[in-house]
Amino acid sequence: MNLAQLRADTPAVEQLIHFNNAGAALMPNPVIEVMTGHLQLEARIGGYEAAAQQAQALENVYSSIGRMINARPEEIAVIENATRAWDMAFYSLPLRAGDVVLTSTTEYAGNFIPYLQLRQQRGIEIKVIPNDEHGQVSLTALRDMLDDDRVALVSLPVIATNGGPVQPIEQIGALARAAGVLFLLDACQGVGQMPIDVARIGCHMLAATSRKYLRGPRGMGFLYVEKSLCESLQPAFLDLHSAALLTPDTFSIRGDARRFENWECNVAAKLGMGAAADYAMAQGIEPMWQRIQRLAEHLRNRLAEVPGVTTRDAGSIKSGIVTFTCKDASATQVQQWLASQEKRINVTTSTYRSTMLDMQQRDLTEVSRASLHAYNTEAEIEAMVQALAGMADT
Amino acid sequence: MNLAQLRADTPAVEQLIHFNNAGAALMPNPVIEVMTGHLQLEARIGGYEAAAQQAQALENVYSSIGRMINARPEEIAVIENATRAWDMAFYSLPLRAGDVVLTSTTEYAGNFIPYLQLRQQRGIEIKVIPNDEHGQVSLTALRDMLDDDRVALVSLPVIATNGGPVQPIEQIGALARAAGVLFLLDACQGVGQMPIDVARIGCHMLAATSRKYLRGPRGMGFLYVEKSLCESLQPAFLDLHSAALLTPDTFSIRGDARRFENWECNVAAKLGMGAAADYAMAQGIEPMWQRIQRLAEHLRNRLAEVPGVTTRDAGSIKSGIVTFTCKDASATQVQQWLASQEKRINVTTSTYRSTMLDMQQRDLTEVSRASLHAYNTEAEIEAMVQALAGMADT
Repeated sequence: MNLAQLRADTPAVEQLIHFNNAGAALMPNPVIEVMTGHLQLEARIGGYEAAAQQAQALENVYSSIGRMINARPEEIAVIENATRAWDMAFYSLPLRAGDVVLTSTTEYAGNFIPYLQLRQQRGIEIKVIPNDEHGQVSLTALRDMLDDDRVALVSLPVIATNGGPVQPIEQIGALARAAGVLFLLDACQGVGQMPIDVARIGCHMLAATSRKYLRGPRGMGFLYVEKSLCESLQPAFLDLHSAALLTPDTFSIRGDARRFENWECNVAAKLGMGAAADYAMAQGIEPMWQRIQRLAEHLRNRLAEVPGVTTRDAGSIKSGIVTFTCKDASATQVQQWLASQEKRINVTTSTYRSTMLDMQQRDLTEVSRASLHAYNTEAEIEAMVQALAGMADT
Repeated sequence: MNLAQLRADTPAVEQLIHFNNAGAALMPNPVIEVMTGHLQLEARIGGYEAAAQQAQALENVYSSIGRMINARPEEIAVIENATRAWDMAFYSLPLRAGDVVLTSTTEYAGNFIPYLQLRQQRGIEIKVIPNDEHGQVSLTALRDMLDDDRVALVSLPVIATNGGPVQPIEQIGALARAAGVLFLLDACQGVGQMPIDVARIGCHMLAATSRKYLRGPRGMGFLYVEKSLCESLQPAFLDLHSAALLTPDTFSIRGDARRFENWECNVAAKLGMGAAADYAMAQGIEPMWQRIQRLAEHLRNRLAEVPGVTTRDAGSIKSGIVTFTCKDASATQVQQWLASQEKRINVTTSTYRSTMLDMQQRDLTEVSRASLHAYNTEAEIEAMVQALAGMADT
């Protein structure tokens, strides 16, 4: 990992302090160049003709992503975004009345609403795994809950949108495997931030986005589906890419994970996500992860020294997402104050409604969120801490 | 409509002859500029921060598209592509065992496979409306078929991917309305090519893409859902944009067509599609449609004079899609031959499997497809005709 290179590839860091990497990170130059280059090519020779010319580069996107998460290229589907990637996994599962879905208190409301929808439509049950003393999924509780034969799915995020712990996903995966239960991992905040190895995790499906810690474009994501599961799981939606019409009465569905894709995509963004994966691997995801954790811990320690500021992150292992509250200011005021500084500081607000169970349990209605990436620095952290201290003085 | 302006905004026309507008048209400069500009903005200030800055421009996308098809902005959902837009309409319908879906012989296999999937999963029936003597949907036959109370949906494309007629959609809409049956229109090849007025058509839902005749980016599309239908139709997929979590046990779904969207999108492409709609309206869709039909008819007449070439388009009203076969060459050979000319000529191939019913009925296995837009010229047509004549000589 080369910090000078990371920052040189991200010219915006000279103009602002971007602590919104859990929203959308700053794309490095190689990603922007691949995308604008492809858009220009489309304008120059035609959209289909450009895709044909880039056919090999488009195939390489699958191998890059596969390599990044230790999966085979044929286990990867490139999908419009992480929401739709997760949807194509979750809504394709043959869940029936009485089937139980286990999730965590840190589950995102965007996934929780689909659970409630299938409870309403199909009569599934939703159970929330309690936390242990660190505020993360209790493995003992999970083991007990998996004794129930009705459990059909374990589904949770590796890292919550509003901070919180890095869940012990390898242990969760091992327990789910041992119980013969499917494990769907929402890795939106994990991919690009920390090493993700689907073989070690043992998850059957994993959904992720391009725009967050991976530093790729918006409007792009991917889904991993384990090879053996691909063939048995009929996608909720089909088209002429995921399936073939054999006769006017029969169709066949392709065997690889691309059965969860559809034919059309934003080709420039697909190439951009591949470039982002290549860039992350070239820099080294493990050393970036070490640096992210170190920077985040430093920020937490510094924030704890600012009068009126309380940090709010739980978990025995914490991520680059740092959440806090200020005694005398709302999260919106904090966000606006920091954005108004001479060197604009981008943080954001996590609300009650996006992670309701977790916020209820911790008796919070909102938190400020500063999410750090490896290209951030101690000097930027210091600038933010000084700005917050200055806010208290006003 | 200003031809000189159209061509000046499309510099690639100096280098090639693009007759693949039914695949993906050449984007005009204003579309490319909006997209690359937004990508640069994202890199400069952050992806979320850029979207916030462009909030009004993003709202304008809905009003532009609404204006283009005579719908209200709140009846428009911006969706990743036309396939997923169509899916969100079709798969959200509460179709049950015994319900009948009426479609046309010109239906695209990408839609036909979902019909077969729901036949398999839910026991719906599929019936194909016969054609009249012009090779388009027989209105008499449709009227008779609508007498069956089990008919729940009429679903067909305004223009087939492999040429064929412009379906009499206003008459079809009137018959469906009179029978109290929902009408889902696939307007992929229609939007941007011809005037589309949902009030005149009377369709309840309409799906369209950005990349074809609209000349917008790849990986973007939209769905129109009539206001009264929006509120009663629960989307097949939900998230935190289409719905809100009220308590850990309850959620509410938003009332407008954005309930069929999801939170994340490719913002640059969304703005690009809006720019494409504005561009089309500024040029004038009606005069472009007149020119497209005139050019296409000219090409058909000239092709008919080339020995060994047979044109294959049906319908009393024909579109800019011109299909043909060559006695001594496969469609792939034709495509490669034309692409290899000094001034590259982009045409494509429509295969049996993408419009099987139509191809069976016309006893064809494939056709060559030249799809013309208003920026094309008689001189380009002449160049293609000469190239085809030259191929016969080799």
